[in-house]
Amino acid sequence: MSKEENNELERNKVERDRLARNKVERPAAELGSEMAAGNGLLDRRTLLRAGVLAAGIAGLGAGLGAGLVHAQGDGSVGADAPAWMRAPGRSFSSYGMPSKWQEKVQRSFMVAPGRAGTGSSRTPLELLEGTITPNGLHFERHHNGIPDIDPSRHELVIHGMVKSPLAFSVETLMRYPMESQVRFVECAGNSGGYSQPQPQQATAGGLNGLISCSEWTGVRLATLLAEAGVTREAKWVVAEGGDAAAMSRSVPLEKCLDDAMIALYQNGEAIRPEQGYPMRLLLPGFEGNMNVKWLRRLNVVGEPVNARDETAHYTELMPNGKARQYMLMQGVKSAIVKPSFGLTMKGPGFYEVSGLAWSGAGRVSKVEVSADGGKSWAAAALSDPILPKALTRFRLAWQWDGRPSVLMSRATDEKGNVQPTRAAWVAQYAPGQPYHFNGIQSWSVEADGTVKNVYV
Amino acid sequence: MSKEENNELERNKVERDRLARNKVERPAAELGSEMAAGNGLLDRRTLLRAGVLAAGIAGLGAGLGAGLVHAQGDGSVGADAPAWMRAPGRSFSSYGMPSKWQEKVQRSFMVAPGRAGTGSSRTPLELLEGTITPNGLHFERHHNGIPDIDPSRHELVIHGMVKSPLAFSVETLMRYPMESQVRFVECAGNSGGYSQPQPQQATAGGLNGLISCSEWTGVRLATLLAEAGVTREAKWVVAEGGDAAAMSRSVPLEKCLDDAMIALYQNGEAIRPEQGYPMRLLLPGFEGNMNVKWLRRLNVVGEPVNARDETAHYTELMPNGKARQYMLMQGVKSAIVKPSFGLTMKGPGFYEVSGLAWSGAGRVSKVEVSADGGKSWAAAALSDPILPKALTRFRLAWQWDGRPSVLMSRATDEKGNVQPTRAAWVAQYAPGQPYHFNGIQSWSVEADGTVKNVYV
Repeated sequence: MSKEENNELERNKVERDRLARNKVERPAAELGSEMAAGNGLLDRRTLLRAGVLAAGIAGLGAGLGAGLVHAQGDGSVGADAPAWMRAPGRSFSSYGMPSKWQEKVQRSFMVAPGRAGTGSSRTPLELLEGTITPNGLHFERHHNGIPDIDPSRHELVIHGMVKSPLAFSVETLMRYPMESQVRFVECAGNSGGYSQPQPQQATAGGLNGLISCSEWTGVRLATLLAEAGVTREAKWVVAEGGDAAAMSRSVPLEKCLDDAMIALYQNGEAIRPEQGYPMRLLLPGFEGNMNVKWLRRLNVVGEPVNARDETAHYTELMPNGKARQYMLMQGVKSAIVKPSFGLTMKGPGFYEVSGLAWSGAGRVSKVEVSADGGKSWAAAALSDPILPKALTRFRLAWQWDGRPSVLMSRATDEKGNVQPTRAAWVAQYAPGQPYHFNGIQSWSVEADGTVKNVYV
Repeated sequence: MSKEENNELERNKVERDRLARNKVERPAAELGSEMAAGNGLLDRRTLLRAGVLAAGIAGLGAGLGAGLVHAQGDGSVGADAPAWMRAPGRSFSSYGMPSKWQEKVQRSFMVAPGRAGTGSSRTPLELLEGTITPNGLHFERHHNGIPDIDPSRHELVIHGMVKSPLAFSVETLMRYPMESQVRFVECAGNSGGYSQPQPQQATAGGLNGLISCSEWTGVRLATLLAEAGVTREAKWVVAEGGDAAAMSRSVPLEKCLDDAMIALYQNGEAIRPEQGYPMRLLLPGFEGNMNVKWLRRLNVVGEPVNARDETAHYTELMPNGKARQYMLMQGVKSAIVKPSFGLTMKGPGFYEVSGLAWSGAGRVSKVEVSADGGKSWAAAALSDPILPKALTRFRLAWQWDGRPSVLMSRATDEKGNVQPTRAAWVAQYAPGQPYHFNGIQSWSVEADGTVKNVYV
């Protein structure tokens, strides 16, 4: 940057700072008719009205604004143009990547020593927006690493209690009728940290990032099962993955004949290696590990096989010492991602509280937000389209007065299921049981703007 | 792969080939009641029925199926397991990439000699599925390359006919209420090859790939304009990009106050450099170049400024030698992507005809498909959710009898707009005028399975 540019930037900054100091923020009291719940939560219809915002924007002042040297559309670059307008930019690419300025937006992961392929990575929910998870940031959960499968040598076999055992190459499956479903996949262990006695201080993604949402495209499993001809005694289907763990799960036949899909594509392109290339089982709303990746076999059987990952893992220990098995569906749930731990609030004023809600049972019908630790609740706005078993974004305007506050969210789904309190959830299980947590979560906003995970 | 594995694969292949030769394909005549139009087009409700498919799947035979050595869910890997199950797979990554087996799935691009940043790259539509375009494959159109913008030094200025000129840093905009819209962006020059007198032989992406569809998230422009206070004389807004072309376009104020957005996110993550990082103007349904990337200024004015890119480019030459200006909305349109040029059909039998439809005016309400060059038409199935100004996937089952056939698609939108024939479209303009082509396209399927672009 030239010295001249520097000086000019500095002049602009001084002017803006002066104006920013003078900017008028409407006090919460003046917004009385727009209040929807205690401690500054505004009605969801407030979102598009003018004058509520004043979120630190800087007026340019009439003089400065009028004086801007701006191109008149003739391609000439004004004297105030930044450095990146003064020379041609870079060229085209075959496959694009995020900006270098976004390099902190990453999956976070930890693996066991000596077992580099066993563990999980998490989607950085607090750094993302909307509801679709970009493929590069979809969470991962592997039981023995990611196999490198040659698609021309991969087959899906359907056998067991069927009239005609069948083998499908990838090429063959590609000729079948396809369908798309925008659906979340969530690990059964997501948010397991909330089962611990003390609140963990971690980001929204660190706590809840074992969930992602994609447009999946593939062949409905019911179509293939009809082709094979399921026999009358059949009740379950054992799905086996082509990884070194031979990850296997028993799936009720009823689910396989409902909305289950052999997914070949994820957000438009071939499914990623981490999500099961060349194909995975998609069981919308069921716990993540059952959506078997690198799918190679579907064995139609009469009873569940009690596979390793439905006995040693993914069972729920109860207070009486017995374990609950085959608790397959993900509950109704929500999490505020803005604000959240690590995203410090910058003084009193207007904020949008934003988060994600979902349910394995269908559509989210309502999300309520509280800014006073659960004393009062206001309905958040839900972003269209609201799809079944998909992430749904909720938003609500909040006029923060700068005092310590506790933010919470509570989702309800179309079947009438409501998120329980954390205490009610914890009471159902043995201490520390980590699977299927869907209790209400709470962020404490401190007077200095820092945000903490708290149990209320 | 061991010699033993090789032998076993070979034995399996021989058995499957034998069965494949014996497989029964139901002749088209037998499907009489399911026919929806001439030359083998089946009713869209046929899609999920069994027995119609037989798309080259291989029966395993009862003996072979029963003899499969399969893991019983205990994590042991059977004797028939492929090489990639015999050793742990690779570990986790911070940001994932597509499988190495998909390296041919790329954007294709051509640039002018000595002007590496001027041109376009195209989305490979025929290799993708569903409706979301993965961010790495979103089409590009740059007028002087991709600027490398430091987001901490970037500002969006709103000035001109406003009461308070305003400057927004990226950080400030992030505090505003946001919304998401799944919308396509299409270059005005997309499918321009169809204006040529001879049909170009190119892939579906090569012909129509200057269109992509994403979930965009950002701040509604109406919110910011209300903050600035537009004066009564204001009628247009000149949007200027922060690239070396200072790409500028005049936008009707009415559109800016309707569904226009300052987009900051694309499919969940920060908008990509090629699509305008850190922000672009999104004008749903309007021609691509007006969705100004790297947006830095919005000058509110009384009349359009006749910028370079709305005079020298992006105007439509008429038969009388005059040019039409400010034809902003993209028409109703559709394109079959499977089958298409380069995707050779493998003999008679069942196929799914699949493609994309869209309209700048709203939702697609109907897509009809013909397999007999337009003599008869059948309604295709449209995939949910059908969103306004978004790509919509259509699908229809086709029993191809192996004879030469011409496939066509024709879209209608919710406003009643219907795709014109190519001849009717061409007649509106001077010869070779390439912008806003939305005529009906035709693929000829030859007896040997090759697919050609034809004018019918």
